[in-house]
Parts: sequence; C-alpha cells; structure tokens
Amino acid sequence: MDKTLAKITPRDVDFAQWYTDVCLAANLIAYSSVKGSIILCPNGYQIWEEIQKVLDLEFKKSGHQNVQMPLLIPESLLNIEKEHIAGFAPEVAWVTAGGNEKLEERLCIRPTSEVLFCDYYKNSIHSYRDLPMLYNQWCTIVRWEKTTRPFLRSREILWQEGHTMHETEQEAIAETLRMLHIYENFQKNYLALPVIVGLKTEKEKFAGAQRTYTIEAMMYDGVALQNGTSHYFGNHFAKAFGISFLDHNNQLQVPYQTSWGVTTRMIGAIIMTHGDDRGLVLPPKIAPVKVVFIPIKDDEKIINAIKQITKDLDVAYKIDTSRKSAGFKFAQAEVEGIPIRVEVGMRDLENNEVTLVRRDTLEKQKVLIDNVIPTIKTLLDDIQQSLYQKALNRRNMMLYEAKNYEEFKDIAIHKPGFIKINWCGNGACEDKIKEDTGLKSRCILEDEKVDDVCCVCGKKAVHKIYFGKQY
Amino acid sequence: MDKTLAKITPRDVDFAQWYTDVCLAANLIAYSSVKGSIILCPNGYQIWEEIQKVLDLEFKKSGHQNVQMPLLIPESLLNIEKEHIAGFAPEVAWVTAGGNEKLEERLCIRPTSEVLFCDYYKNSIHSYRDLPMLYNQWCTIVRWEKTTRPFLRSREILWQEGHTMHETEQEAIAETLRMLHIYENFQKNYLALPVIVGLKTEKEKFAGAQRTYTIEAMMYDGVALQNGTSHYFGNHFAKAFGISFLDHNNQLQVPYQTSWGVTTRMIGAIIMTHGDDRGLVLPPKIAPVKVVFIPIKDDEKIINAIKQITKDLDVAYKIDTSRKSAGFKFAQAEVEGIPIRVEVGMRDLENNEVTLVRRDTLEKQKVLIDNVIPTIKTLLDDIQQSLYQKALNRRNMMLYEAKNYEEFKDIAIHKPGFIKINWCGNGACEDKIKEDTGLKSRCILEDEKVDDVCCVCGKKAVHKIYFGKQY
Repeated sequence: MDKTLAKITPRDVDFAQWYTDVCLAANLIAYSSVKGSIILCPNGYQIWEEIQKVLDLEFKKSGHQNVQMPLLIPESLLNIEKEHIAGFAPEVAWVTAGGNEKLEERLCIRPTSEVLFCDYYKNSIHSYRDLPMLYNQWCTIVRWEKTTRPFLRSREILWQEGHTMHETEQEAIAETLRMLHIYENFQKNYLALPVIVGLKTEKEKFAGAQRTYTIEAMMYDGVALQNGTSHYFGNHFAKAFGISFLDHNNQLQVPYQTSWGVTTRMIGAIIMTHGDDRGLVLPPKIAPVKVVFIPIKDDEKIINAIKQITKDLDVAYKIDTSRKSAGFKFAQAEVEGIPIRVEVGMRDLENNEVTLVRRDTLEKQKVLIDNVIPTIKTLLDDIQQSLYQKALNRRNMMLYEAKNYEEFKDIAIHKPGFIKINWCGNGACEDKIKEDTGLKSRCILEDEKVDDVCCVCGKKAVHKIYFGKQY
Repeated sequence: MDKTLAKITPRDVDFAQWYTDVCLAANLIAYSSVKGSIILCPNGYQIWEEIQKVLDLEFKKSGHQNVQMPLLIPESLLNIEKEHIAGFAPEVAWVTAGGNEKLEERLCIRPTSEVLFCDYYKNSIHSYRDLPMLYNQWCTIVRWEKTTRPFLRSREILWQEGHTMHETEQEAIAETLRMLHIYENFQKNYLALPVIVGLKTEKEKFAGAQRTYTIEAMMYDGVALQNGTSHYFGNHFAKAFGISFLDHNNQLQVPYQTSWGVTTRMIGAIIMTHGDDRGLVLPPKIAPVKVVFIPIKDDEKIINAIKQITKDLDVAYKIDTSRKSAGFKFAQAEVEGIPIRVEVGMRDLENNEVTLVRRDTLEKQKVLIDNVIPTIKTLLDDIQQSLYQKALNRRNMMLYEAKNYEEFKDIAIHKPGFIKINWCGNGACEDKIKEDTGLKSRCILEDEKVDDVCCVCGKKAVHKIYFGKQY
C-alpha cells in the first residue's frame, strides 16, 4: 500500500547525484516543464518561510523597512551605470511584447534592483534628514543561467535584497559590515554552517560595487558555496543617477550606497553540509517541524497518549497519523530531516515510556513520559550544537595553507577544500591559479597579517586569501 | 524646517484625484520610471504584510500549504487549455530573449498559474490518497493593462493564488465556497468592508472556469470593486492536461479543480471605503501601527512618561520622536490613517492625563494615565465596529432595486450604486444593459428567490442579480 520512498545514491559514490536525490526524496523541490526553473514544494518552501521569519525580524530590528519595487526594468534605466550593465546584460531575460503589441523599449526582468532603488532615491532623497534610507525587499529575480541545479544555480531565484543610502562613506561601510555580520551570525546560529567571511577580489566583486564582502561556506565535498554578499558602492551609482542631498551646512552632497542579499541557495548549503545517505538533516532552529510523533500502530490509546504528551509541548511538532506503516513513517521522517522522532508503541506505553530518535546520529533512547518535553528541549539544543561542531571540524580539516606554488598545486590537485596563500593582490596571479588548477579566489582575510611574498609570483604579498573550487 | 504635508483634493470635488492624492500623501506608493508599475513604499507594504499574516494563517488552518511555482510559462503550456489562453493571450508580457540569445519558444510572465499547477499535478497525482492537493502561493503576476491606477489596476500585481485538486465535484465546490467565505469574513472583520458575495455571469467569469464566485465591495462613490474571486473549474483543465488518479475501486478518474485569489487591490478598497479629506483611515485590526504617541514638545519628562505608559501596552504602537513640530506630527498621523493618536503634553501630565484622538471621528478625550491602556483597547474595538457600520449604512443607501427597465435606466443615470433586478439569465439582456447604461453585472444572488419576469426582456426571470459600474 505504501508508496515506496525514493532511493538515494550514497553520498560518497556520487555527490552530485546524492544531492539531487535528496532534494527530490525529501520533497523539497519538483522539476517543472519550465527549463531552468524548479518548483519549491511545501517542504522546501517551509524552510524558506522559516529563514524569512528570522531574517526579516533581524532586518526590522536593525531599522530596515520592506518595500516592493517593480519586477521589470526598462533597458535605458539598466544602462545608466556602465559597469553594472556590462556585468548583467549577458544574463537577463528580455520582455519585448505586451499582449499582441511589440514594446517600444524592451524591459528586462530584474536580475537585481540597484537601478530601481536609485531611480526611486533620486526623487525621494533631498536632505540629510531623509537619510539613511534603509530598505529591503523579498522577491524573485531572474538570471539567464545556462546550466542550473536546484537551489544552487537557477534562472529564477527567491531572495531578499537590501538597498541603503547614507550620508557618509563611513556610515555606508559600517552598514555593509553590519549586514554581513547579521548573515554570518544567522548562518552559524540557525543553519549551523561554519562560514568564512571576507572581501572579494576586484575580479570577483559584484558588477558596479566598490567592495563586495562574501560569506563562504564549504560543502561536504570541499567545494565552496558563496552564501550571501554585502556590497559597498561608494557613490558612483548615486552620481550616475543624479542623487544628491543638502547636508547640515546646506551644501549639496552625493550619498553613499550599499546592497546585500541572500537567497534560497542557503537551503542547498544546509543539504550539502548536514545531509547524509538517509537524506536531509535539518538544524532544529530552522526546521519547520522539529519533532514528529509516530504511533507504532493505529490505536486510539496510542494517539491519546501522544495527544497527552504534546499538550504542553511548545515547539513545532506533528503527529503522523497517515495510513502508512510505521517503518515507512520512520524512513520518511529521516529523509525529510526532522530533528527528532518519537516512536510511541503499546509495549513502551505500558512501561510509561516512549522512544526518542535523533536524526543526526540516529541514536535511540527510551524516555519516561514525564521527561519527554525536557528531553526534547535538551536534545534539540544538543543536535543544533553538534551539527555545527561536526561541520566545523570537517571544514577545518579541509582548510590548507600553501607556502609556495608547487605546494599549492599539489594540494589543489589532491585535496578538496580551501587553500590559504599570501598574495600580491595582482589579478594576473589570480588568473594563473585559475588556469593552472581551476580554483578561484574565495575571499581576502582583511584581519590577517601578511609578512611574506606572493605564493605565485614571489613579489611582496599584501593579502592573505583563500582559493577553492566553487559551485 | 518641516517638510510640508502633501495637499489632498477634497473627496467630493474630485474622487479620482482624492484617491491618488491619498495614496501618495500617506506614503503608500511612489511612481516609478517603469510604466504601469508602482513602488510599494513601507507604509503600503506594511498593510500587505498585515493582510498576508492573517490570511496565511487562515489558509494554513484550513489545511493549505505554500509552494512556489515558476515565474515564466512556456507558450505551449499556456496554449493547452483553449478558453484560458483566449482570455489571457491579449494581456501577457512575453519574454523572447535570454541574454543575447533569442529563445526558441517564447515565455510569458505568469498572469495566473493554473497551467503551472496542472503541469505539476500531472506528475504528482496518482491515487485518491494524493488528494486533496491544497496549495497556495504568494507571488507577483503580470497583466499588460493599458490604463493603470495604484492598487486597482496595474501591470504588476502582488497577490496570493490558491490552487486545489479534489476527488469529487462536491468536494471541489465546497472548497470554492469555503475559500470565498474566508475572504468574505476577512474583509468584513479585518478590513471593515461590507461586501456582497455571489456568482459571476457566464460573460464575466474567469477564463476557463465553470463557476466564478466574487466578492463585490462598493466604494464611497458607489462604484464596485471586485475584491477577490474563487473559481470552480470542473475537470476540463485536468482533462486537457491528462491528470488522473486511481479511486478507491482502482478505477481511473479525473480530479476536480479550484483556484482562488486576492490582491493588493484590497488596499485600494480600504482607502476608498474609509478614507476622508484628511487622508487614509485604517481599520485597527489591519493597521500596522495602531497607536501613535506624540510628545507635544521634545522634553525628557514627556518621553519618560510615554515610555512608562507604553510599558504594558500590547498593541503595535510607535512614539514619534522625529524632529518635527507637534502640529506636523498630528497631521501626519491623520494622513497615514493611524487609528488612535495620543497627545502627551506638560500641562496634561501635571493633571495625570493625556489626550486620545480617534482618527475616524477626530473626537478627542482626556484620559487619566491609569486608564490609557484599557481606553485604547475599547477605542480600537469601537473604531473597528464603527467603520464597518458607517460603511455598511452608506453602502445600503446605494443599493437599489428596479422593477422595470425604465426605472433601471433612471437609477443608472441618476444614482451611483448597485441596482438589483430580476434577470432571465440571457447574455443579450446583460449586453443591452451595458450598452444602454455602461453598467456591468456584479453578481447573481444564488440564495434569493425569483418569481417575476426579466427586467429587460420581460421573459421569465431565473436570477436576482446586481448591476453596477466598476473600477
């Protein structure tokens, strides 16, 4: 009677296939007839709702307000800032007709909304009293990617994009870093992802930005996932759009700008950091359902006992009363990554007990009914900490430092992970690494001291920087 | 020093201009360089967030789950259901290029997502155990309108669309009505809108639907606003898409479908029902900020007193400490429609009092500080009830019933509002009314008995039906 659970390819046999299998088996996504777009199924969308809930509150607490800008950008508006259009033109979708009429000017579906916000700021910023402008929007963007993978790279992306304007350079830089750290803390504390934050090189920064800060997560296979960025623009968008304000001395000034965003790609990071051969493993703090109660058989006494137990449980739980076998339900709870399952059977109940199984280690324990709620609470904390620690240990084992270029190439060829080097700051050395090894720069570590020579060219080094393969 | 508040054209001088003035003066929207699209500013978007919060919970309580379907629909997919494409083809935006490449098949930006859901259901519905499918999504749609007005008609629309599939016709019809009533109750209880619900005529129903139920609100000027619809599709989309399931007897069956949606147009209805010459008036239950505390002057004692008062206040409030005059703040609170403002001055404080002003009637009352919180609570309830009652009375005064066609035309020409008639059910009579008077059918009142002849042609009537002008 039971629909069989989908098979999952073992993670160490074929990581890419494992990833796709988990996305589908955990009912996170479905494929559609629309090339390059996925369907976010309830299990996938719920995780995004949990992410939105936490981040939206963080944004509001830090003084940001939500708005909604248009979906479409006229070509002339996109063309105003030259670096920006150069970066995005190859990957936007163009609307050229409305109904049966050809449009006079084509419009692109927003790939990001800097120009739309600048167009708005132009009319709404007049005085220093209007600053800072601290806006955010939750929306969909489109980038015309050639190859796509669920959550990691797709033509249509669910994200949030913050866009702010400030009186001074210092204030704007502080905002860029403040949002970077909100992302960093969220990913560490909620998603249990150990991340490295730092500055992108000139070559890798956002089209039109002066500085791009990035959050670099490392997946189970040692490959990097850029998992959020925060940009400082200086004021050259503002200049290009003619945005200005009267300062305290009644002098005309040009404001300073930031933008920052994270996407559903974070769901991909959760899967590829915590998942295992049985499927998804969700960190409790972001799991839409934290505990599932499974009756071993369809018996009223068992259901009543579960209702009694859950009466005072104040974490999100569900009771699986579907017409499936207990074995199927256990497997489904595992593939969907629910942090704790509680098995409730007749024999256990006679002993006033139930069985708790934690998803991350699959450890079982019998718990007296009176202790279920406190045990669940402790266990949820424990799982959250332990997922982070495990991911951190694994990540740290895949961090390398190369003293010279031979050593760098040797590690790059034989060991997955990130390699730290001293770097002269020259794009030519960055290019050479990419050509020789396929590794790209991840981020410059601004806080780390440098007193050596560039690992590639031997000239004076100015930065410590990580390199790694990327998704 | 203060930015002057925008002027609002009196409502009875020029209702259309008054509406636009309020939208802008209350900072609900801003115009953009993107023709036909508006910017939802923080004040406008916050109302949408409040609406989402309440409705999303209602949807979830009634067993629906959120998903996210693609933004773009390949032309071949849109073409599968003939009535549907005939209705929507003239008003979709077409994407024809991705980056620098022309697409092999053009894609439209979803104007609604029936075909995307059917495409998904085709692969995910196999057995009666998979039914019902109860899905919803919050998203943006595009319809290429020629003339646009903020919230009422725009090229880009924020909305929610529910899409469900059921084993039987009865179940699907029950779902159509269940969601209609969730909308109806929400609009009555939260938005304080008196609404009429009923069935659309063949001519006015949704492209591809078998039945369309509608929520008809009447604005201050007597003009109708269609403020939500719920559709029953039968199973002809399902047949066109080849969706089928094995029933309890292992027989192949075709499932029955519904869809239902409401949009930011509801914000337009709030404005045009409750607003006045001073600006917006928000029903307390949907107001993002329900109370604003305004210090009469910038004095630490006053601020401290306000902090003391608000310590135990558990409704959303703000304290306006901006560097503006008290008079400006009063006017701003009024134009933004905040239900209650609390004026706190030194003299009042000496008497242990503050002044409460309700936005709907502008009545002032002095209240002892100890009574502020209970008074706020009572007042909020009172404002909510009273806004509904006032709107209901006004709406009822503009409901007419015409016995014959001369009377109908006379009312249609001289009196704004809805006119109820007996109708034979023939589209020709409906057309004649539109030609002669410009009025369109609003909805058939299914529960009302008919025992007369058609107001237009004199043949046997089968329905009571409302006609009215519409936005």
